[in-house]
Amino acid sequence: MTSLHIPRERDNDYSREAAAKRRRFVEEQTGAALEHTSKFSFDPAILPGNIENFTGVVQVPLGFAGPLRVNGEHAQGDFFVPMATTEGTLVASYNRGMRLTRQAGGITTTVVDDAMQRAPVFAFNNAREARDFSLWVTENFSAIKAAAEVTTRSGRLRNIEQYSASRMLYLRFNYTTGDAAGQNMTGKATYAACQWIADSYPPGIGYYFLSGNMDTDKKHSALNTLHTRGKRVVAEITLPRQLVIEQLHTSPEAMYAARKTSQLGGLMAGAVHNGVHPANGIAAMFIATGQDEANVAESHASLVYAEVTPDGDYYYSVTLPSLIVASYGGGTGLATQKECLEALGCYGQGKAKKLAEIFAATVLCGEISLGAAVVSEEWVSSHDQYGRNRP
Amino acid sequence: MTSLHIPRERDNDYSREAAAKRRRFVEEQTGAALEHTSKFSFDPAILPGNIENFTGVVQVPLGFAGPLRVNGEHAQGDFFVPMATTEGTLVASYNRGMRLTRQAGGITTTVVDDAMQRAPVFAFNNAREARDFSLWVTENFSAIKAAAEVTTRSGRLRNIEQYSASRMLYLRFNYTTGDAAGQNMTGKATYAACQWIADSYPPGIGYYFLSGNMDTDKKHSALNTLHTRGKRVVAEITLPRQLVIEQLHTSPEAMYAARKTSQLGGLMAGAVHNGVHPANGIAAMFIATGQDEANVAESHASLVYAEVTPDGDYYYSVTLPSLIVASYGGGTGLATQKECLEALGCYGQGKAKKLAEIFAATVLCGEISLGAAVVSEEWVSSHDQYGRNRP
Amino acid sequence: MTSLHIPRERDNDYSREAAAKRRRFVEEQTGAALEHTSKFSFDPAILPGNIENFTGVVQVPLGFAGPLRVNGEHAQGDFFVPMATTEGTLVASYNRGMRLTRQAGGITTTVVDDAMQRAPVFAFNNAREARDFSLWVTENFSAIKAAAEVTTRSGRLRNIEQYSASRMLYLRFNYTTGDAAGQNMTGKATYAACQWIADSYPPGIGYYFLSGNMDTDKKHSALNTLHTRGKRVVAEITLPRQLVIEQLHTSPEAMYAARKTSQLGGLMAGAVHNGVHPANGIAAMFIATGQDEANVAESHASLVYAEVTPDGDYYYSVTLPSLIVASYGGGTGLATQKECLEALGCYGQGKAKKLAEIFAATVLCGEISLGAAVVSEEWVSSHDQYGRNRP
Amino acid sequence: MTSLHIPRERDNDYSREAAAKRRRFVEEQTGAALEHTSKFSFDPAILPGNIENFTGVVQVPLGFAGPLRVNGEHAQGDFFVPMATTEGTLVASYNRGMRLTRQAGGITTTVVDDAMQRAPVFAFNNAREARDFSLWVTENFSAIKAAAEVTTRSGRLRNIEQYSASRMLYLRFNYTTGDAAGQNMTGKATYAACQWIADSYPPGIGYYFLSGNMDTDKKHSALNTLHTRGKRVVAEITLPRQLVIEQLHTSPEAMYAARKTSQLGGLMAGAVHNGVHPANGIAAMFIATGQDEANVAESHASLVYAEVTPDGDYYYSVTLPSLIVASYGGGTGLATQKECLEALGCYGQGKAKKLAEIFAATVLCGEISLGAAVVSEEWVSSHDQYGRNRP
Repeated sequence: MTSLHIPRERDNDYSREAAAKRRRFVEEQTGAALEHTSKFSFDPAILPGNIENFTGVVQVPLGFAGPLRVNGEHAQGDFFVPMATTEGTLVASYNRGMRLTRQAGGITTTVVDDAMQRAPVFAFNNAREARDFSLWVTENFSAIKAAAEVTTRSGRLRNIEQYSASRMLYLRFNYTTGDAAGQNMTGKATYAACQWIADSYPPGIGYYFLSGNMDTDKKHSALNTLHTRGKRVVAEITLPRQLVIEQLHTSPEAMYAARKTSQLGGLMAGAVHNGVHPANGIAAMFIATGQDEANVAESHASLVYAEVTPDGDYYYSVTLPSLIVASYGGGTGLATQKECLEALGCYGQGKAKKLAEIFAATVLCGEISLGAAVVSEEWVSSHDQYGRNRP
Repeated sequence: MTSLHIPRERDNDYSREAAAKRRRFVEEQTGAALEHTSKFSFDPAILPGNIENFTGVVQVPLGFAGPLRVNGEHAQGDFFVPMATTEGTLVASYNRGMRLTRQAGGITTTVVDDAMQRAPVFAFNNAREARDFSLWVTENFSAIKAAAEVTTRSGRLRNIEQYSASRMLYLRFNYTTGDAAGQNMTGKATYAACQWIADSYPPGIGYYFLSGNMDTDKKHSALNTLHTRGKRVVAEITLPRQLVIEQLHTSPEAMYAARKTSQLGGLMAGAVHNGVHPANGIAAMFIATGQDEANVAESHASLVYAEVTPDGDYYYSVTLPSLIVASYGGGTGLATQKECLEALGCYGQGKAKKLAEIFAATVLCGEISLGAAVVSEEWVSSHDQYGRNRP
Repeated sequence: MTSLHIPRERDNDYSREAAAKRRRFVEEQTGAALEHTSKFSFDPAILPGNIENFTGVVQVPLGFAGPLRVNGEHAQGDFFVPMATTEGTLVASYNRGMRLTRQAGGITTTVVDDAMQRAPVFAFNNAREARDFSLWVTENFSAIKAAAEVTTRSGRLRNIEQYSASRMLYLRFNYTTGDAAGQNMTGKATYAACQWIADSYPPGIGYYFLSGNMDTDKKHSALNTLHTRGKRVVAEITLPRQLVIEQLHTSPEAMYAARKTSQLGGLMAGAVHNGVHPANGIAAMFIATGQDEANVAESHASLVYAEVTPDGDYYYSVTLPSLIVASYGGGTGLATQKECLEALGCYGQGKAKKLAEIFAATVLCGEISLGAAVVSEEWVSSHDQYGRNRP
Repeated sequence: MTSLHIPRERDNDYSREAAAKRRRFVEEQTGAALEHTSKFSFDPAILPGNIENFTGVVQVPLGFAGPLRVNGEHAQGDFFVPMATTEGTLVASYNRGMRLTRQAGGITTTVVDDAMQRAPVFAFNNAREARDFSLWVTENFSAIKAAAEVTTRSGRLRNIEQYSASRMLYLRFNYTTGDAAGQNMTGKATYAACQWIADSYPPGIGYYFLSGNMDTDKKHSALNTLHTRGKRVVAEITLPRQLVIEQLHTSPEAMYAARKTSQLGGLMAGAVHNGVHPANGIAAMFIATGQDEANVAESHASLVYAEVTPDGDYYYSVTLPSLIVASYGGGTGLATQKECLEALGCYGQGKAKKLAEIFAATVLCGEISLGAAVVSEEWVSSHDQYGRNRP
């Protein structure tokens, strides 16, 4: 049944023809019409490195929210934030938060850390040999770094964390990766480093794997929250009391009361962060700007800290400890994604931290907007208004 | 500075003209060209309930993987799985896993639970009053259920979990929601139930919020892993030893050794699940089929269990405890998304569990493929081949 | 080298002579003098069921703190709390908290749940069979309950939670166990239930174990925090503002500020609870009252919720979700331990909930005292005064 | 009501008379007889720094298990392990594991890390100022170290971890503390360091607390598992297949199958470690050797890694990542506790790592013994035989 195989072109698989052939195949096999998915506006020749079996596109609705006022070190001024989503209310809710924070003078943002990881594991006969290896790794850091960096122009090995358990030593290589997200770059560099280690270390390594799962790639972990994966970025604002009352129809005290109750619920539930819904804004911006959507898993973590100030205003901050964003590489150069990045002034070299700041500021707007809606009982009614959800 | 506001049309904001007006506005404000984002093939009139400030689309490359052979209760036969992604290697890797599992006879899938939540919290003067309220809720379940279900045609209140802390009682309403994801439906129904409770319970409720964060919406939690959010679905297969050796260039023993080491690393890292990268397949299928992309946060959780059988084969299973998927409502009816669902035979009423089974089977394929690549040291080389990552 | 074996008496191993023989053996083998450990005041004949190879005693210093004023449902009035510890400052710190809370009118306590677990696991050919078994268990609850309760006079099987993963079904049997902690009772009852299940269920159970680790015995878990292990008990108080200022040399606002900061740190650290040091008071009372000291692992969990009231007072509550305490059985009947329980009016039948309330109230006192010390910078100085720690 | 206060002697509160006075007071107030608690064999003058309101002792039954064969770097040879407990079966179960592991040649132990923490937090106007402070701390490490070490003879500040969230910087001071547990020492040293920092840093520190809860003292945390608290120590053994079959009445395969199932259950339950019951052995040895019993909270964590070797033997290892043990200071010098330490050859200077190795080896014995009992269905029957539990 060779017909069962999705057709591929040996010579030029990234062409309109190859895509059309695959659409016809899927249509024949499934009976579905692939009409709208065929409507893409770019040359498939740009796609190698982004997808295999290219067949067409998914058109995800794009809305802009803003202006978002950011007082960052890298992002300064007003931004119109592209959000691709199919969830009603989302853009409106972030937009409301942006209006409020703009009226309050804008959001202060700070990138406090930046690192991407690959975390190999080495196994030995026993824990003592693993510990000896640990010392050797520390002593040979410069050589390991050199071996790793041979493979990359922009990646730099910053440090290697070490974690020991049983007869294994887990290493966590931390790289700065310029403006790329860097997962592949760090994989390649660490692979080279591991080979150098295996060649250079006296006999005794039982086996090693390129990942011992302490990266921790595509999944949330306490380790990522502690030691950063991607950017660690803080967004902060102090909302004047009057603004909260007038615009959000609630008070700092009521919002903080809801936070406290919600925090206790989250702790009891074993929730991995104490924010409300950073995943919403992050996912929508990820799609719009060509980020790796699976990284919502890591990036959705947040550390919210709020307080009613002695003057009765509302200080609110969101720390994103493992936000993985790139302004270069991956899907950032694709047709629509690049346009969205350019609308933010964030495409290309030297823009990743600026982009991270805009992400964090956007997340903060969504936290405040939904947080206030829950308190002021507007939540369900706003979903009713905006959300024509059929069921 | 009224020019700063993103333009909206009072009468018909979901039109090509309104979208064009917004694109021009963003272009003027930012200097970016929104050329490709203007290329959408559907009538914006379908969009209310899915987005606000509609401005265009993001074109996400779509590839198909498969055929995927599923021996489910709802999904049976071979499927071509639509994956929208910008990450090179992803489709190819899942495709490899599908080929292997098909050769092994296909993947057995079982939906073992199904519930969507909204979790309000009620606060009292003290814990004793909260406990008394707890008994009242149990006694009045039928009336609460009736009050909730007034608001929905397809949602059914199945049960209410209770969690007590301090002077609060956190309730977790569990609904079956037909083929919709149900977050809005459950919000609305629970809101009505809360109002009924507030009206019916003797004076004493200090305050309540529609969410006390034990839902736990848009974030991973231990609670979701324990008690399901969305579908709880298991995918299983026994891979014949010979197949692993020939196709994956490794052995069941080597794959299992890597799993063990990786599991220990994940435990030490405080990783929230013991899979490898379910988020990859889930995110790509979420975009393709119009799911809420932010639910990657909840849905990326997994419980992998594997063993080398006495015969030397490799039994492998993935349990997704909180997979949120819909075949109806939300973004499922949008132009390209609907086509993708139809290609799976999963659009509309009565298809959500079928879709959940296909998701789980797909995730399993990705786990095996990447798991094997790490072991056989093909990981970096395959990324080099497929991933023309620029940096 | 038979001399290497610790001597045991075939006839009467629980005698002063047998203990003396073992002391001499250890003295000979190790060169240490076992002088003080020989000074016990009770007849070793009471010890079967509490220890093997009885050799003497460890004398743990005992101090009393109090009076502690408790406004519970089971504990009412003033109590002198026995604490066995070797840590300087501990008794003094709890004592300070007791003085303060007594001046504030005493602590309100409420037992909100009560259950002890044993959690077997059953494995099947596949997940579908496990799911079918799940339905069978629900349908046959009465018969399972009957089979379990045959083995115990005071234990009652309340309900069975079910958790599914892969081809296994994990059951969590919840018992009320009267005034005993009940770990052995529930083990025995569940063992009988499992045998009945294995006999009664149609062929298909691959294997089962008496514990699949969802008890979760002798270790902290999110599950225990959610669903209680032992007693779930809340202690609450509102401290008048003036009292905080005068007695604790700080203010409600300052104490709450420290709590907020500390909570964020704990969340970031992946700490399993948001209290300060419940383990201190619990461990000291566990030793004094003959509880299972290893249960500090489960019992140290807490959910603290505090707020500065609109009047400027300080509401503070501690919820202990998995406090394992007994007034009967285990070590409660031993010579000194029984005296300590009697000093609390908590020895024997019908006293376990009273004891749980006293524990919770005591824990609250320690949280407030240490919390205030950290804020008012007395922490190090008080340790210096009381703690003549040699190093 | 002065009678309500527990009596204290101004001049010499650590005397037999003062203790007797307090016993009489408690007897009068409560009606309980404090007969056995009065039977202590040491001079209360040794107690300052260990307890306040000294009133008598709790006599905890002491049994010895062993000999335990340890092939450590610090502990070498056979040891008789003192365990103070009231839980039947405990000593017998550990003893069984010791016999088995001795027959297998003994347990290899390795201390791989050693650090005690105090973790202050500093708050600023905003995250940017906190980040600047972070750089300053790095640059001024030598001076901070000097300020800290002024306060201690044996403590050495090894490094300072930094964690940022919101406008706070959390520091985690890691000390080596010689043979003491070091909680007080590190508190004092860090307090001095904080004062130096507050004096030396340019104006801008909003406030600071000596603990921001990232220590994380008296509670389990992911951070402690990652970065060690106290000793990080590994115990390992390979059990010959035949021995498992003959002595444990099961097989390596069956034991490993139970481990796998149990691990999945624990992961699903959100259990904080994957061992069985390290808390049992640790708590019993803690009481016997004068450790801080509340540290069971931190110390009960474990990372178990096991495998059936290609030869069919059973490799088993336990890593204790946060074992807090001292051979000096705290309660180690008390009458009976010192005797127990001397029986291990572990009292005084230079013995803490030896003691840590014995702890880890003991824990391993308990894991294997109980793990095997669960598999071979002896669990309930052994408790029935040894455990005369009354209920």
